[in-house]
Amino acid sequence: MKESSLNILNRIQLNYKKLSKGQRLIADYIINNYDKVAFMTASKLGEKVGVSESTVVRFATALGYGGYPKLQKELQEFIKTKLTTVQRLELSSDYNDEEDILKKVMKADVENIKKTIEETDAYVFQSVTDIILEAKKVYILGLRSSTVLAEYLGFYLNFILDDVSVVPSGINDVFDQLINIDEKDVIIGISFPRYSKKTLEALKYAKTKRAAIIGITDSNYSPIKEIADFTLTARSNMASFVDSLVAPMSLINALIVGVSMKEKDKITSTFKTLENIWNEYDIYLKNRD
Amino acid sequence: MKESSLNILNRIQLNYKKLSKGQRLIADYIINNYDKVAFMTASKLGEKVGVSESTVVRFATALGYGGYPKLQKELQEFIKTKLTTVQRLELSSDYNDEEDILKKVMKADVENIKKTIEETDAYVFQSVTDIILEAKKVYILGLRSSTVLAEYLGFYLNFILDDVSVVPSGINDVFDQLINIDEKDVIIGISFPRYSKKTLEALKYAKTKRAAIIGITDSNYSPIKEIADFTLTARSNMASFVDSLVAPMSLINALIVGVSMKEKDKITSTFKTLENIWNEYDIYLKNRD
Amino acid sequence: MKESSLNILNRIQLNYKKLSKGQRLIADYIINNYDKVAFMTASKLGEKVGVSESTVVRFATALGYGGYPKLQKELQEFIKTKLTTVQRLELSSDYNDEEDILKKVMKADVENIKKTIEETDAYVFQSVTDIILEAKKVYILGLRSSTVLAEYLGFYLNFILDDVSVVPSGINDVFDQLINIDEKDVIIGISFPRYSKKTLEALKYAKTKRAAIIGITDSNYSPIKEIADFTLTARSNMASFVDSLVAPMSLINALIVGVSMKEKDKITSTFKTLENIWNEYDIYLKNRD
Amino acid sequence: MKESSLNILNRIQLNYKKLSKGQRLIADYIINNYDKVAFMTASKLGEKVGVSESTVVRFATALGYGGYPKLQKELQEFIKTKLTTVQRLELSSDYNDEEDILKKVMKADVENIKKTIEETDAYVFQSVTDIILEAKKVYILGLRSSTVLAEYLGFYLNFILDDVSVVPSGINDVFDQLINIDEKDVIIGISFPRYSKKTLEALKYAKTKRAAIIGITDSNYSPIKEIADFTLTARSNMASFVDSLVAPMSLINALIVGVSMKEKDKITSTFKTLENIWNEYDIYLKNRD
Repeated sequence: MKESSLNILNRIQLNYKKLSKGQRLIADYIINNYDKVAFMTASKLGEKVGVSESTVVRFATALGYGGYPKLQKELQEFIKTKLTTVQRLELSSDYNDEEDILKKVMKADVENIKKTIEETDAYVFQSVTDIILEAKKVYILGLRSSTVLAEYLGFYLNFILDDVSVVPSGINDVFDQLINIDEKDVIIGISFPRYSKKTLEALKYAKTKRAAIIGITDSNYSPIKEIADFTLTARSNMASFVDSLVAPMSLINALIVGVSMKEKDKITSTFKTLENIWNEYDIYLKNRD
Repeated sequence: MKESSLNILNRIQLNYKKLSKGQRLIADYIINNYDKVAFMTASKLGEKVGVSESTVVRFATALGYGGYPKLQKELQEFIKTKLTTVQRLELSSDYNDEEDILKKVMKADVENIKKTIEETDAYVFQSVTDIILEAKKVYILGLRSSTVLAEYLGFYLNFILDDVSVVPSGINDVFDQLINIDEKDVIIGISFPRYSKKTLEALKYAKTKRAAIIGITDSNYSPIKEIADFTLTARSNMASFVDSLVAPMSLINALIVGVSMKEKDKITSTFKTLENIWNEYDIYLKNRD
Repeated sequence: MKESSLNILNRIQLNYKKLSKGQRLIADYIINNYDKVAFMTASKLGEKVGVSESTVVRFATALGYGGYPKLQKELQEFIKTKLTTVQRLELSSDYNDEEDILKKVMKADVENIKKTIEETDAYVFQSVTDIILEAKKVYILGLRSSTVLAEYLGFYLNFILDDVSVVPSGINDVFDQLINIDEKDVIIGISFPRYSKKTLEALKYAKTKRAAIIGITDSNYSPIKEIADFTLTARSNMASFVDSLVAPMSLINALIVGVSMKEKDKITSTFKTLENIWNEYDIYLKNRD
Repeated sequence: MKESSLNILNRIQLNYKKLSKGQRLIADYIINNYDKVAFMTASKLGEKVGVSESTVVRFATALGYGGYPKLQKELQEFIKTKLTTVQRLELSSDYNDEEDILKKVMKADVENIKKTIEETDAYVFQSVTDIILEAKKVYILGLRSSTVLAEYLGFYLNFILDDVSVVPSGINDVFDQLINIDEKDVIIGISFPRYSKKTLEALKYAKTKRAAIIGITDSNYSPIKEIADFTLTARSNMASFVDSLVAPMSLINALIVGVSMKEKDKITSTFKTLENIWNEYDIYLKNRD
């Protein structure tokens, strides 16, 4: 994770003194209109502020970005947590023919996974698998659409580890289910924009009980990052009202395999037992010769 | 979907008469040992049968495959439905270091999505979105790990359409929940290896009620294919005991966007209402300036 | 429901002017200490206020209660919504031997049902069954422990009616699931102490959409009563930290039978179909001769 | 539990030799037509068989029943597991006016609870609370309508004990969730007519792992009785297609209180913590002065 944890507005403030007069005009404009600038070209931004396009480009470089597109990308990331679903629908590019939709959406997911591979820190990934393996109990928390990721991760970890609990399940409230969490346990909080308030509250509660906190979220601007001991990020960008959970699910696949490789004997024995049960109780289709 | 719906054993039988003597030895061997051959090199197979490696290669071409690797791939697809989880664990390549796991698993998912893009037929995709939009009620059925895909699809379609039901939910049995299904409804059955028996039974029941059946599954060898009116396939390959649901989820993203583009006004109005509610009842984190 | 919908404090205020001087001392004391008075004998209350026990008894009669025990009972009902679970645990009588527990708890449930029979208004009960039968869609909402009643009612109504939805189910939020509710629908809100805030909010939202609101709750002091078009009450008293949902479940049994009697042909046909399915798919144990 | 575990047909066979000639005619008729006899008066039965009413009455006495009504009651119990829902609907008495329904149904529940109090053995009840308190992990299993009882019991035990799991929850299958069960654990199986096949299979599996088995079911003819170490029975009779779970829920209330009385300090501390959380996160309605 080479990205600084400074956000773009912090960065502008820190560098403000060394900026030229024209660059300061740009800085002021961005601070007050970052949500609009996130979707302006360099030339449009220059026009709005009354400076040349090349001043805009030099401004980006002065802040340490490798060009205006990178600065703009950062702005888009930054505002994402702040856009309502309606604003996102309005921003969503129109997909004019359906074949196009299929390709555009799925190719965006390919890009999301590729960027996630690049951005994931091997040390963090390894630490997370170790923490999960050593915990007395593993809690997995995800609300609203993130529930599906929590259930998917829980479904597989349940075959590998002795004590895994997907929260919430059943009718007890999230907090009721965390009442016994302690410092030997880990809680994996899964949260993507728009971040559920209750997930964050529950993680804060778990922190007061000194459980290890692992976050799975979309970016370094996520509120989960501030509270987690280790954070894995996976891109969830999608030009629609949907947050794509594809790259996060792929990261979770890697996590499951990472944990399972260290418990291969146990899993083999578990599945030998289950194959017999599944066979006896006729859960899956039989071989069809 | 250019792949023939013949399976590889059918294809061997159909072409048997025109094969050379040496090729027939290979054919016989495969028919009796396809599960082993799926993981043999051409040279190993030649050795087993007592023919040269180049005879094996010509055999593949004679059956219409563009080389031995393609034939072998087809065999692997074919046997997948027949492998138990324990067999898959034993076949799973060892991932020696953890950084490697991350990259290998996520790159496999990139490949799964790319192949899914190639293999999806635009006409089928368009037909499926039309059927969903025109149905009186949309049932979405997924059991075991496929539940997460059913819930994900249901979560978003619920914002777009009037009457969407993820089955099973609550405590009624799958069949109890399908008791009112009729010919104006559609049921989307999601099933990946190892195929749940109950999913197939429920789709068969829905067919007797003349509901439209849409299958989302992993290949043309899936039992879902035989019963569905339209089938979308997405690759779920993963060299582990886990079936990756990443490419299927990406396909479902495309489906959600495809359906939503035709109901954009309705969705915008729905989310305007929900934004107010979410805001009033404090469900998401507020903007953090 | 002959009980006035005035609460006891309202009643004291209304009658204040016609009270004697000594009675006014009692009135003032109760208004400021009703949570303590709820557990005082008449003689103890007299002592605290500095009046005779018989003044206390006459005070109860002056307010229209048939004696001090009835006034005290009313106070206990009133404060129940205000007691935390910890306070209730402290108040709970000790059950010294286990056989005793069984009898005491179950006899209390018998009393709860008997009082519920007495207090249920036949006209309200009949109106509720009619509204349920005539609704386009029936939503059933219950959170926390009331979820079990919502699911139980939903389980059976699902066999009788075409469109029944237990909320929440699946991963959408309560409000997401109510987005399409309208004036042709009914929502049955089930809420027992300590009343969930979200249940009340969701019913208020449904009211803005002009759906019919039916409340199933514990008393006329319940916040549900204020918002529902029709309210059925069932006693949930229990001298422990548990709220007994036994009398409410019995009332729900009556509701299910009431609705089913008007749709007997449909149910018979539904179950004929289901018996065949259950038999074919081996869901229940077979006859054991 | 003084009732013999012999069923009525066994009893007839055992006593056959000592019966008079006329009594043997009755015995033969019952063996072949028990489902009809269960709903015949003594005089009707005599007429069918060609004996006098008093012969029928003496027959009942000869088998050890305190009269014909008791024999008939036993037959009704016996066939209950064998009646389909459709047969029960046909047998159900018509409830002609709605006020009647309310009273009849709720009074039947009062009777169910009263009989359950009488029939519950104090020693069994005490043993069950002890086993639950001493178990490492408590699994609670209920399918279909019994799910609501499993969830209700789990909701409260979760506040008292460290490790309680309601099965199934989430997306793993029942068997997946029992994979780690062992001889230090207890599983509480809840099953009422018509008994779910899967519940019985899961309990049998748990028995092979030597977990303690507690059954909560409706009668001594229940298949659960044969496999459980301790069985608590509660009446679920209802003259409709619904099985009333009211008496079972009341018994579960007693069980919760029984367990909680031995852990009162722990519960008080748990709820003190939860009150703070509930208060902070605004889960319940605040006091309304």
